Amino acid sequence: MEKMMGVLIAGTVTLDTVQTPQKQVEDVLGGSGTYAAVAASFFGNPVRLVGVVGADFPQPYADFLQTRDICLDGLKRVENGKTFRWGGRYAEDFNVRDTLFTELNVVVDFHPVLPDAYKETPYLFLANDPPQLQLSIIEQASNPKLIVCDTMDFWIHEEREALKKTIERVDILILNDSEAKLLTGESNLLRAARAILRYGPKRVIVKKGEHGAISITESSFFSAPAYPLTDVIDPTGAGDTFAGGFMGYLTSVGDVSEGSIRKAMIYGTVVASFNIEDFSINRQKSVQLSEIEARYQELQEAVRF
Amino acid sequence: MEKMMGVLIAGTVTLDTVQTPQKQVEDVLGGSGTYAAVAASFFGNPVRLVGVVGADFPQPYADFLQTRDICLDGLKRVENGKTFRWGGRYAEDFNVRDTLFTELNVVVDFHPVLPDAYKETPYLFLANDPPQLQLSIIEQASNPKLIVCDTMDFWIHEEREALKKTIERVDILILNDSEAKLLTGESNLLRAARAILRYGPKRVIVKKGEHGAISITESSFFSAPAYPLTDVIDPTGAGDTFAGGFMGYLTSVGDVSEGSIRKAMIYGTVVASFNIEDFSINRQKSVQLSEIEARYQELQEAVRF
Repeated sequence: MEKMMGVLIAGTVTLDTVQTPQKQVEDVLGGSGTYAAVAASFFGNPVRLVGVVGADFPQPYADFLQTRDICLDGLKRVENGKTFRWGGRYAEDFNVRDTLFTELNVVVDFHPVLPDAYKETPYLFLANDPPQLQLSIIEQASNPKLIVCDTMDFWIHEEREALKKTIERVDILILNDSEAKLLTGESNLLRAARAILRYGPKRVIVKKGEHGAISITESSFFSAPAYPLTDVIDPTGAGDTFAGGFMGYLTSVGDVSEGSIRKAMIYGTVVASFNIEDFSINRQKSVQLSEIEARYQELQEAVRF
Repeated sequence: MEKMMGVLIAGTVTLDTVQTPQKQVEDVLGGSGTYAAVAASFFGNPVRLVGVVGADFPQPYADFLQTRDICLDGLKRVENGKTFRWGGRYAEDFNVRDTLFTELNVVVDFHPVLPDAYKETPYLFLANDPPQLQLSIIEQASNPKLIVCDTMDFWIHEEREALKKTIERVDILILNDSEAKLLTGESNLLRAARAILRYGPKRVIVKKGEHGAISITESSFFSAPAYPLTDVIDPTGAGDTFAGGFMGYLTSVGDVSEGSIRKAMIYGTVVASFNIEDFSINRQKSVQLSEIEARYQELQEAVRF
């Protein structure tokens, strides 16, 4: 019997309103699950999405996801519900973001049930979501090869204990630098990452935005550069896109060696670099694999010494 | 006739008072010229220091510099003057530093005159100093092979026009990320660096502290990782040490190709990583070349993908 392939991505699917100094967009396709799934879909393996939307979720958005071969059998549609809406505003240099509103809507009562066809997916990515929901997915999965989880400051503040229970069960935790410090109380990033290893994961990947990302295990350290960009349009979803590209590449090579993990981080970096060149997932609609490979090569040249 | 070797380093030589959450030290050896010269001295070429101290400058400090084969013929001693004193305090995470006092003392009236034996030094490093003073050194030098200059936010605020005149004359400007943005008014770091290239330098190196450094020319981009450290004792002088190690290595190989520049940045990173493991230049007293090579190899492994 052929072993099942592909990556399961659980996360939010939202309608976002984003203000930047240049422009505002309303009710565009967003969410951690969306960004991650679209990013993963570049690498040629089945992507299975788990999430929830309301009756107001625009059909063209669902259609687009399906054109990327993203399976939506796990995307629940609540007929009397409204889709999760988020609004944010960026300051001039894009390093400061104010959340304008967060309407959880259908996410509040969402208890995901994995379709049978999803359960044996070998690669599992739990994008930013409530930690109890992430844990429930882990418990429904049958012996996944790799479990990777992302989170955000909100859950560290509000659900620290539940989050720690989820983290205990994952192979790789992905989070950003301020979150790593917040979670552990360590002000030194390397100490923070090492403290997280003691919670259970075998590897911690810390996203540092314009400064790239690092990966730490008990015995390895990898520093991934950021892709040098001068024209940032909208950084929303960059971290989710990084993680989705990471998962998509790993799934495509089918191994989780240090070498593959490193390459996967660079592919994640590249896909994220495209994503911030436009609002929502718009830039991803036109990106070619050859463009991804070209930026990958550029990054290889950028760190050579 | 054998071509003259070595590196000329002009910068401050100070007595520093530093408070960290763990400890306080008073009147320890510091200054941009000191840190840079000590760092450059690891690489086996003559280091010629240009600066000024007062009658109160402790002889043991001068003796130490000479044990490193740092020539002090260009270090003026003002018999009725007091040495530049600086005091600073670090917050818990070392990312915030408050200046407690700055007593320029003998620096105020210092007009450096290069000893004849210094004039043909091929490698010239103008560590942080008033821009007019940096320009005066450039004007006294005879056809240097490479002129590299550092600066700081104070001069960008107070002496912007003079600083731009100095920058026009240098091959490489080294500065930190907030300074690059401040100098150019660009909030995107890459745009800021490119704007600086239009002021005259052929290359800009931007120091990003715990996030490493980048080098930009019209046609190249290099991202140097930071060395992963968990035990920071005192970051004072890290940037000057980086630049000094950079100059020391370049001087030792005698070429300024892209490849050598990149290696030099990594050596600068490594020497700086040792420097912050103790106060003043104390850690440098015991560092062996083999330890420097070991961290260089670690960084090579840390970026490999």
